[in-house]
Amino acid sequence: VRILGVDPGLTRCGLGVIEAGASRRVTLVEVLVAQSAPGDEVPRRLAAIAAALDQVIDEHRPEAIAIERVFAQLNVRTVMGTAQVSGVIMLTAERRGIPVAVYTPSEVKAAVTGSGRAAKAQVGQMVRRLLGEGVPLRPPDAADALAIAICHAWRGAVAGVGDAGRAGSGVPGADDAGTLATPAQARWADAERAARRAKAGPRLP
Amino acid sequence: VRILGVDPGLTRCGLGVIEAGASRRVTLVEVLVAQSAPGDEVPRRLAAIAAALDQVIDEHRPEAIAIERVFAQLNVRTVMGTAQVSGVIMLTAERRGIPVAVYTPSEVKAAVTGSGRAAKAQVGQMVRRLLGEGVPLRPPDAADALAIAICHAWRGAVAGVGDAGRAGSGVPGADDAGTLATPAQARWADAERAARRAKAGPRLP
Repeated sequence: VRILGVDPGLTRCGLGVIEAGASRRVTLVEVLVAQSAPGDEVPRRLAAIAAALDQVIDEHRPEAIAIERVFAQLNVRTVMGTAQVSGVIMLTAERRGIPVAVYTPSEVKAAVTGSGRAAKAQVGQMVRRLLGEGVPLRPPDAADALAIAICHAWRGAVAGVGDAGRAGSGVPGADDAGTLATPAQARWADAERAARRAKAGPRLP
Repeated sequence: VRILGVDPGLTRCGLGVIEAGASRRVTLVEVLVAQSAPGDEVPRRLAAIAAALDQVIDEHRPEAIAIERVFAQLNVRTVMGTAQVSGVIMLTAERRGIPVAVYTPSEVKAAVTGSGRAAKAQVGQMVRRLLGEGVPLRPPDAADALAIAICHAWRGAVAGVGDAGRAGSGVPGADDAGTLATPAQARWADAERAARRAKAGPRLP
């Protein structure tokens, strides 16, 4: 299954494509960071990100798009730009008939590192270990986008792709533990359960 | 000049088209409220709003699109949906080569009622007085969208359409007072100046 992970942002938008195979194997297909000029008007910036997205979709034909959920942060201006970009990505996916799944940052961290509270650098290191040295560590948006794609691949394998990313589905229970392929995935299942217990802050569409 | 005003929202999105002529005359062309089902996935909802927007643009060929600026409010979930819709509208406008202007709610209220703190019902009444009984008062998104279009028409007339909606332009100064056509517009100029002095809260793209 080909999956496009998106770390949405107006200045930098990570776009990472992976191929997810049997036994939770994941391989790198492409990763890039789309950019727009902060000095430009927002409509132009959104169109620049959308053009890069269209190009990646045209070239790699992903069967699913996974997006990081936008959270309310301290910098409200940044959040609004991120939400606008996520709207553009969702519209593009819908118009092309590609299903969209949304994951929280802690779900993504938990999926690749085993801890929902992992540091950003740790996520990058883990993504590199999983997908190889072709993953750039800077800017972090590249590895983040791939981490989101991996999160979808592994949750999809448990829950069925159609349900992945929806509230209340795709979460491995205790009886899934025996099917997890790697120690990281076992830790991820534990972290998932912990994250569900310790959920804090508003969740946004 | 044909202007499309948009009151962005995921559940209800007001779309109001006016024709703005000489002497600040404005006439109603069309107004509707695009809707999406709250039970649907966000990508589908965004596509429903975008389809309604495309239809209005195809039919009425606006030369400018004016959008209400998204503010951080208490209901963060609603704000995110509104920001996603505004992103979709901006992308659509940019791809069709239609310039976009953005106004704060208080700028819009001031433009049509003379007070940046006017009640919602007062805005609806004033829009109806200006554009006629064809303006529905419920849901308020219809009159709000038209108010945004009127705001752009009147600011555009003062500032030049190309500059309207950008920070620091389109604000009538003391020397504009003699050219204002109606008492409401004179009050609007006063309210504008007061609003600039008493600006509070974060401004978002």
